[in-house]
Amino acid sequence: MSKPYSRLDLDQAVILLVDHQAGLLSLVRDIEPDKFRNNVLAVADLAAYFRVPTILTTSFEEGPNGPLMPELKAKFPDAPFIARPGQINAWDHADFVAAIRATGRRQLVIAGVVTEVCVAFPALSAIAEGFEVFAITDASGTFDPLVRDAAWNRMSAAGVQLMTWFAVACELHRDWRRDVEGLASLLSAHIPDYRNLMTSYAALKGAIPSRAA
Amino acid sequence: MSKPYSRLDLDQAVILLVDHQAGLLSLVRDIEPDKFRNNVLAVADLAAYFRVPTILTTSFEEGPNGPLMPELKAKFPDAPFIARPGQINAWDHADFVAAIRATGRRQLVIAGVVTEVCVAFPALSAIAEGFEVFAITDASGTFDPLVRDAAWNRMSAAGVQLMTWFAVACELHRDWRRDVEGLASLLSAHIPDYRNLMTSYAALKGAIPSRAA
Amino acid sequence: MSKPYSRLDLDQAVILLVDHQAGLLSLVRDIEPDKFRNNVLAVADLAAYFRVPTILTTSFEEGPNGPLMPELKAKFPDAPFIARPGQINAWDHADFVAAIRATGRRQLVIAGVVTEVCVAFPALSAIAEGFEVFAITDASGTFDPLVRDAAWNRMSAAGVQLMTWFAVACELHRDWRRDVEGLASLLSAHIPDYRNLMTSYAALKGAIPSRAA
Amino acid sequence: MSKPYSRLDLDQAVILLVDHQAGLLSLVRDIEPDKFRNNVLAVADLAAYFRVPTILTTSFEEGPNGPLMPELKAKFPDAPFIARPGQINAWDHADFVAAIRATGRRQLVIAGVVTEVCVAFPALSAIAEGFEVFAITDASGTFDPLVRDAAWNRMSAAGVQLMTWFAVACELHRDWRRDVEGLASLLSAHIPDYRNLMTSYAALKGAIPSRAA
Amino acid sequence: MSKPYSRLDLDQAVILLVDHQAGLLSLVRDIEPDKFRNNVLAVADLAAYFRVPTILTTSFEEGPNGPLMPELKAKFPDAPFIARPGQINAWDHADFVAAIRATGRRQLVIAGVVTEVCVAFPALSAIAEGFEVFAITDASGTFDPLVRDAAWNRMSAAGVQLMTWFAVACELHRDWRRDVEGLASLLSAHIPDYRNLMTSYAALKGAIPSRAA
Amino acid sequence: MSKPYSRLDLDQAVILLVDHQAGLLSLVRDIEPDKFRNNVLAVADLAAYFRVPTILTTSFEEGPNGPLMPELKAKFPDAPFIARPGQINAWDHADFVAAIRATGRRQLVIAGVVTEVCVAFPALSAIAEGFEVFAITDASGTFDPLVRDAAWNRMSAAGVQLMTWFAVACELHRDWRRDVEGLASLLSAHIPDYRNLMTSYAALKGAIPSRAA
Amino acid sequence: MSKPYSRLDLDQAVILLVDHQAGLLSLVRDIEPDKFRNNVLAVADLAAYFRVPTILTTSFEEGPNGPLMPELKAKFPDAPFIARPGQINAWDHADFVAAIRATGRRQLVIAGVVTEVCVAFPALSAIAEGFEVFAITDASGTFDPLVRDAAWNRMSAAGVQLMTWFAVACELHRDWRRDVEGLASLLSAHIPDYRNLMTSYAALKGAIPSRAA
Amino acid sequence: MSKPYSRLDLDQAVILLVDHQAGLLSLVRDIEPDKFRNNVLAVADLAAYFRVPTILTTSFEEGPNGPLMPELKAKFPDAPFIARPGQINAWDHADFVAAIRATGRRQLVIAGVVTEVCVAFPALSAIAEGFEVFAITDASGTFDPLVRDAAWNRMSAAGVQLMTWFAVACELHRDWRRDVEGLASLLSAHIPDYRNLMTSYAALKGAIPSRAA
Repeated sequence: MSKPYSRLDLDQAVILLVDHQAGLLSLVRDIEPDKFRNNVLAVADLAAYFRVPTILTTSFEEGPNGPLMPELKAKFPDAPFIARPGQINAWDHADFVAAIRATGRRQLVIAGVVTEVCVAFPALSAIAEGFEVFAITDASGTFDPLVRDAAWNRMSAAGVQLMTWFAVACELHRDWRRDVEGLASLLSAHIPDYRNLMTSYAALKGAIPSRAA
Repeated sequence: MSKPYSRLDLDQAVILLVDHQAGLLSLVRDIEPDKFRNNVLAVADLAAYFRVPTILTTSFEEGPNGPLMPELKAKFPDAPFIARPGQINAWDHADFVAAIRATGRRQLVIAGVVTEVCVAFPALSAIAEGFEVFAITDASGTFDPLVRDAAWNRMSAAGVQLMTWFAVACELHRDWRRDVEGLASLLSAHIPDYRNLMTSYAALKGAIPSRAA
Repeated sequence: MSKPYSRLDLDQAVILLVDHQAGLLSLVRDIEPDKFRNNVLAVADLAAYFRVPTILTTSFEEGPNGPLMPELKAKFPDAPFIARPGQINAWDHADFVAAIRATGRRQLVIAGVVTEVCVAFPALSAIAEGFEVFAITDASGTFDPLVRDAAWNRMSAAGVQLMTWFAVACELHRDWRRDVEGLASLLSAHIPDYRNLMTSYAALKGAIPSRAA
Repeated sequence: MSKPYSRLDLDQAVILLVDHQAGLLSLVRDIEPDKFRNNVLAVADLAAYFRVPTILTTSFEEGPNGPLMPELKAKFPDAPFIARPGQINAWDHADFVAAIRATGRRQLVIAGVVTEVCVAFPALSAIAEGFEVFAITDASGTFDPLVRDAAWNRMSAAGVQLMTWFAVACELHRDWRRDVEGLASLLSAHIPDYRNLMTSYAALKGAIPSRAA
Repeated sequence: MSKPYSRLDLDQAVILLVDHQAGLLSLVRDIEPDKFRNNVLAVADLAAYFRVPTILTTSFEEGPNGPLMPELKAKFPDAPFIARPGQINAWDHADFVAAIRATGRRQLVIAGVVTEVCVAFPALSAIAEGFEVFAITDASGTFDPLVRDAAWNRMSAAGVQLMTWFAVACELHRDWRRDVEGLASLLSAHIPDYRNLMTSYAALKGAIPSRAA
Repeated sequence: MSKPYSRLDLDQAVILLVDHQAGLLSLVRDIEPDKFRNNVLAVADLAAYFRVPTILTTSFEEGPNGPLMPELKAKFPDAPFIARPGQINAWDHADFVAAIRATGRRQLVIAGVVTEVCVAFPALSAIAEGFEVFAITDASGTFDPLVRDAAWNRMSAAGVQLMTWFAVACELHRDWRRDVEGLASLLSAHIPDYRNLMTSYAALKGAIPSRAA
Repeated sequence: MSKPYSRLDLDQAVILLVDHQAGLLSLVRDIEPDKFRNNVLAVADLAAYFRVPTILTTSFEEGPNGPLMPELKAKFPDAPFIARPGQINAWDHADFVAAIRATGRRQLVIAGVVTEVCVAFPALSAIAEGFEVFAITDASGTFDPLVRDAAWNRMSAAGVQLMTWFAVACELHRDWRRDVEGLASLLSAHIPDYRNLMTSYAALKGAIPSRAA
Repeated sequence: MSKPYSRLDLDQAVILLVDHQAGLLSLVRDIEPDKFRNNVLAVADLAAYFRVPTILTTSFEEGPNGPLMPELKAKFPDAPFIARPGQINAWDHADFVAAIRATGRRQLVIAGVVTEVCVAFPALSAIAEGFEVFAITDASGTFDPLVRDAAWNRMSAAGVQLMTWFAVACELHRDWRRDVEGLASLLSAHIPDYRNLMTSYAALKGAIPSRAA
């Protein structure tokens, strides 16, 4: 009766970053800017760390929407980059879908701006074609919480699984023993509270000499 | 297992504006008035822009509920206007349903005041008769967020798709190339942040000479 | 695939007021006290106005939970009153279920304190026995919004329809022509914004002479 | 260096109710309507209970601002009522100031709608003429919390004391022994939590027989 | 001991609009964009309506800060416009101060972006030179409420009076009889709730024929 | 069509406490610390009171995650304690699942830190293997409300029932007559409002002599 | 021009606990109950720890206001306890003032319920008589944040210093070397986040053997 | 009557960073962690950029309070670092005051954790000794907003000026022409919205070639 547990798999996941453009980012008001920027960069870092195939797409970079966040360009120099000539729903652009199909993967992990359009439209289209779809909710932003809630509701009703970047990282990693240092670095870079835990721990273990000493 | 993606179609959509009356608007306290007024006018503008058939209905304009927002009257001079003699659920009024059926369309896009009654009741009735129903959540208002949440829950559970005016506009437009100027004007008129992007862009492109020059 | 529209019917509805006791009311912190008290009294008034059979039940009035709100006792002097000797879930008390079955009705409209126990438990039990169940969310209260959200989620997932007192009143009334004065009085007594509309309207119509005159 | 304690005195206080009109009340969005209505009626009840001279004033009752709340009219049939012909700051109307001076009192206790104009303007004017001024903050309302904060700041900087209806009642009453029943009734009528305490207490003391008995 | 009531005077006020530029507006996150844009335009309209001398200033329009809101340029074609070559505090620019002194007025009414810099700095400088300073808090915006609170605190401690556009308009107008139509139009254009009151009132008075008729 | 009422049963429930470690607790920011600590200890107390089998598990106690809350260690000295060597999803650790299966019970009641990982992952895994799963939402914490909402949505969609510690206690207890003193003590220890009710009640019944006497 | 730094002194401070009674506590809705209870108990613990003279007072313990929190009675068996026969402002009761004067101390540190009456009234009276007054804001509660803000404003304007229990403890302690263990225990008992730090620290230092070991 | 404008001066300012230690940071809950971390690093960057003398102090780095944020240690390798042996108020430590006096500067700009103790105590002490004191409110954190408000109130009443890191940077810089690149880099590094403006601007100016090109 309920959705089965579709678990993210390192061999099946592909990350789609949709329209994180400098102009469009000014529309994001449901998540505070420092946190939102951190969350988007966390997704980029986890994609690189886990070597998950990543596809970038934008809409009219030359116009008011502005260029893709430079950090994303720099992080994925070799990733497929689909500059859509006009399609609002990225799924309507054959090149975008082709890039996804070229990976041979079935789990689409999407983040984008704005949530109810740039995330929800391709998410719903992909579900309709049989893909498993996961939205990274905290790396997707929109006008206000009411709009976000409506977008989440529509996506969830269609079968999209709502996740966050931390949950995605943990579900892909599965076991700390796989690479304790790597995961710890990722978390430390994007979760200030975790960074603090590690700082205190390292100091007590002698790794960080106290300045007072 | 989950709802299929029912995508808005310019040939199937009809917009229903229910009871946006001057008196009833004073009951709306789940959305701030400047934003709510803007959202309702945005729906009117998008309906006109996309030439989506639009049906207006009111309840007791002569009484405390007050007249329909004059801007809506002015925007749709030729649209069917159904002044209900007493039915709370607009679907209980044969004229209202007849006006909808006369369009031959199957996708009902509803906004109204208040959400849990004037939107939810006809939405639920229409679902029961096989229509696809989309609520424009941000152009529908009610007493407080708790009431809104209950209304959304009931509608969503019945199969109503929760949308916003921006998502409706984007899903109808589909491709910027259809009319870049038109969509940009619509967005600029109702999204201050987008208007700012366009202002800065135009200035840099030379369209708006700097006053300082 | 989705829940059909189960519409409240004056011949099928029975209202259940569960544990609105003076002591337990101090536990309610997800709705502000003035509003919560108003909502509960609105349910009482609508039950009386529509002559919907109403059943009262309490838990340990003699102890810290305190007596039922005196206004409810006064409003329903002849209603079945079930003082449960210990059952937390009112449905576990045969007298309570018997009182419901004695009405021959199938639509249970429940409000109570606290939401996740006194409302959710009998609501879930009644669903399991084939009743249609409607929770009056704004006349039900609990410890905080997080607890309320969990309670709503559990009830909704089980098929309970989430409503509010205003939606219940409107769905029962259906057509203003049934009794304009009666419904208007009910709304005026419990919706300050609507009362203001009526005051201004009446003054302009000459019913309330201006003090200044 | 700081303001001395200017304590409300039953022989010096006069209550000024400014523009609590049905139309203007729809502008109040910094306090929820059920609570605001309750607070205003509490001020009326305490004014009557303590027999504090009370002066009513309105602005254009015949126009969109609407009539004074009928409950206030009914509560103070013999109080000075000043229908201002146009002055926004009530202090600019000689009749209003004359009515105040006629009481011979020096402590002005003001509530009104909207806070930053109808309360703040006369409050500042009265301070400038040497009166002690107390604003009943929770029976005064305005557009949103930001506007309220600005209004409070301006008034406080000028020497207005910010109070609430409950603090006013307690400062006037001073000693429960003066009239236990009277104060308790006032509190019970307007503080649901206190009403609950009294209900439970009375039941345990035998005053309210349990329905279950 | 407390600040005297310094009342705005039509012959002494000058309005200063500081850095309402398209780029900088994207930094404003303590007030929702629809409301903020409305508030800024309300200040422009009241300045024009009351014919209060108005001075515009900007910082680097040609750069990322972007051009002044085009509506402000259009509204004040003949007003002094000071494009600062680099001074962050507008008061550090001799032309800006000269433009103020040229008006011969002593009451500076300032709004700007962002509050703690573009408003607070010239406000504090002007106070230090003996001007009376009024901040239009709701037409000034900044990063978040915490930053706003700190800015208000610093300004208020220095003697700046915190106001809002509506309070400024009312304090300048003083008496409705001065021009009922004019003030009503201003309020109707920028306070949706007031517009609704006027719509209902006009309809009842026969000015707006009901569509249903 | 909807989930059947799966009611907690004293003979079927097993409580799983996942990663309530001193370091990880600093990550919890969706519930205020005093309340969260109280909720976790309430779960521990109810587990002990109802003698529900309880299983503890932790992740890297020796590292930055820190040791399990000492109160939990002290409360369950004989409970199975599974220190996972690296598995993020506790269900991936055979010992953990074995400990659950060893109880022979089918209703898993889970609380943990953080919600979207340490609770959601084993919850989803357990659902997939046919267990009934209940999340104790208010004894589970995470980074912020947005992350919590996404986690709840994913769990609920998969069939997890969202509960709270109070609902769990009431559903297990079922009838006050089972042990009035025991349940009252549990509630008094963890619900300050309920404790107050009991204090007042006891005083009036003579159990607590007034200090004033 | 501004208030001088009046620093709490172990030889000058006296703590006044006003009306923390079981019934009145149900009125406190500006601070969540778990946190408020914790804060009040923290004040009691710090008073005992620092051996600061403490005076308790109540109003009508035998009536609906209910008995003083039993924990406070138990903590201060020998402290002056003033059961006021009716005075709302404790300062109006000669015994209360006499108890304060008997200590010979000049720094009054007050907490109570409700803030705008039971704290503000004696605070203002004491200031007027030349005492230094400090309000423990987080161990004082009232109806809602608006009421609290008004109360704080009135007290602050009169010269009351607004503090919190943690600031009081730190200002009295002054130097950790005075008693590291003692202060750490106090903080650990009432600040969950600090308790977690100590738990992790102790574990790493070997004081708390890991369960896993 | 009001505080004169004390403007930050590059030759008079000294920045004091008090107790930004990894353990204590977990106590900060009035500002979201991503934003707080960003604000603290912004202060460090502006101190370095403007070459303002900076003094670091900590309390018990070896204990649960944890080490100073490593980024601060790295940023100021040659700054005075005062590890206090036990004084809670840094001003009570002669070395700390001596380090300040050694700079010969009179404007103390303080940030720290927690606000009401580590910032407020030395701020009040410094005011008492004739320094000008500025609190960087957004780089200072504490338990919750109520505690913050009390701390701000106490500091402001004593004459502390409440600022933010952005206001400090702008007041020190004074004129963009001093170093456009430098200030822009500082803002871009710590204000995501400003970074976006610069990204879009640079792209339009040709500095950042569009990826799509």
